[in-house]
Amino acid sequence: MTYCVGMMLNRGLVFMSDTRTNSGIDNINTFRKMFNWSRDGDRNLTVMTAGNLATTQAVVSLLDERSKDPADRQPSLMAAKSMFQAATIIGDTLKEVIATYADTGPRSDTTFNATIILGGQIGEGEPRLFMIYPEGNFIEATFDTPFFQIGETKYGRPILVRAYDPNMTFEQAIKLLMVSFDSTIKANLSVSLPLDVATYAAGSLCAARQFRVAAEDPYFAEVTNGWGDALQKAFDVLPDFEFPK
Amino acid sequence: MTYCVGMMLNRGLVFMSDTRTNSGIDNINTFRKMFNWSRDGDRNLTVMTAGNLATTQAVVSLLDERSKDPADRQPSLMAAKSMFQAATIIGDTLKEVIATYADTGPRSDTTFNATIILGGQIGEGEPRLFMIYPEGNFIEATFDTPFFQIGETKYGRPILVRAYDPNMTFEQAIKLLMVSFDSTIKANLSVSLPLDVATYAAGSLCAARQFRVAAEDPYFAEVTNGWGDALQKAFDVLPDFEFPK
Repeated sequence: MTYCVGMMLNRGLVFMSDTRTNSGIDNINTFRKMFNWSRDGDRNLTVMTAGNLATTQAVVSLLDERSKDPADRQPSLMAAKSMFQAATIIGDTLKEVIATYADTGPRSDTTFNATIILGGQIGEGEPRLFMIYPEGNFIEATFDTPFFQIGETKYGRPILVRAYDPNMTFEQAIKLLMVSFDSTIKANLSVSLPLDVATYAAGSLCAARQFRVAAEDPYFAEVTNGWGDALQKAFDVLPDFEFPK
Repeated sequence: MTYCVGMMLNRGLVFMSDTRTNSGIDNINTFRKMFNWSRDGDRNLTVMTAGNLATTQAVVSLLDERSKDPADRQPSLMAAKSMFQAATIIGDTLKEVIATYADTGPRSDTTFNATIILGGQIGEGEPRLFMIYPEGNFIEATFDTPFFQIGETKYGRPILVRAYDPNMTFEQAIKLLMVSFDSTIKANLSVSLPLDVATYAAGSLCAARQFRVAAEDPYFAEVTNGWGDALQKAFDVLPDFEFPK
């Protein structure tokens, strides 16, 4: 499983993804699920993937044009004229990869599906955030629905719904995402640290600020412990139920 | 969909279930999912059901022995000598009902599966809580795993894990369950008010205290609004993230 969230703020975009992959509970690995393409002054694109690892790695490799000679590599993502075009390219690539392995050769019991979040900004366009489906089509975030989750989405959703505010700073948004990831990690063994984080400031058209939250990260531990206490206090403050007389 | 929780406390058992059933999103109804059998001084049994409504209604009717003349109705649940025996009777009934309709006649696209929570106390035995699977087997709650959820379990789980305490009063436990139901109802249209609630005091061997939380219940509204504010405050209290220098 996987948990990734892409979030639109007034000041830009925030992305967080876990790194755990599993094929059964006794075959657990760490793989990066966040990928970035950027060219200063022109564009920044961040992609996060959930689903079949062979599919998502193939998609990322194709987007990187790794099938070409290193000298010829000019990912068409880097040539897309708009975020809509970039989403279309990724959707088509995803659909093709799934079709290639689904219809030929030995049959697997599982599907090769994957879902992708794409966020970024190209040239004079606005920052945009998309969720791309295995069928190749996609939806775009709006200020009514300002974030997308993929993977194990349910445990971490209530706090996002309650505490999201488009005026948040990046620091507050990262805190919110950490609380959401903490709830998910506590509930589902197949989502785990380390986490990859990226923030992209609207209009900057340069590389996203990226870092990794390690398993022993002190701030994440503070959020985990502090959130348990804060939640307990919030719960205590609510008036107790009284039985009808 | 459905959401039901059965919870073991030091002082007894608490049950909460929603009442929404749906077959597609345009065929929504209200059905009771909580059922009670009791005889003062002898036993109290509470059952909650999730899954195919035809299956769960058939199971409850059979447990009530509605196929017999009213005068002959002596549900074997009322004759079971222990909670283990009661769980076995319910598991067998559930398995048989599913088998009856699954293997004969026109085929449905969906399965007829259902899952059942059973809690209660018989005679001199301890209060016990079981989760019964469509296959007819079951597991029992212990103080390591003191509650069972069925139906749409994920949204409401983080707060249960964080705030459960075996020493809670019934009033506190009902508050906790309402917070958990509120998170679920906010996230999933197929779970909704009214809610049925029952509390059974350990050793009382009489009918559980039961009531219904209506759609316009003022305490539930207080929990819903208060929890949003309390959560926001709890979130604000956590220290913000700081970017590495």
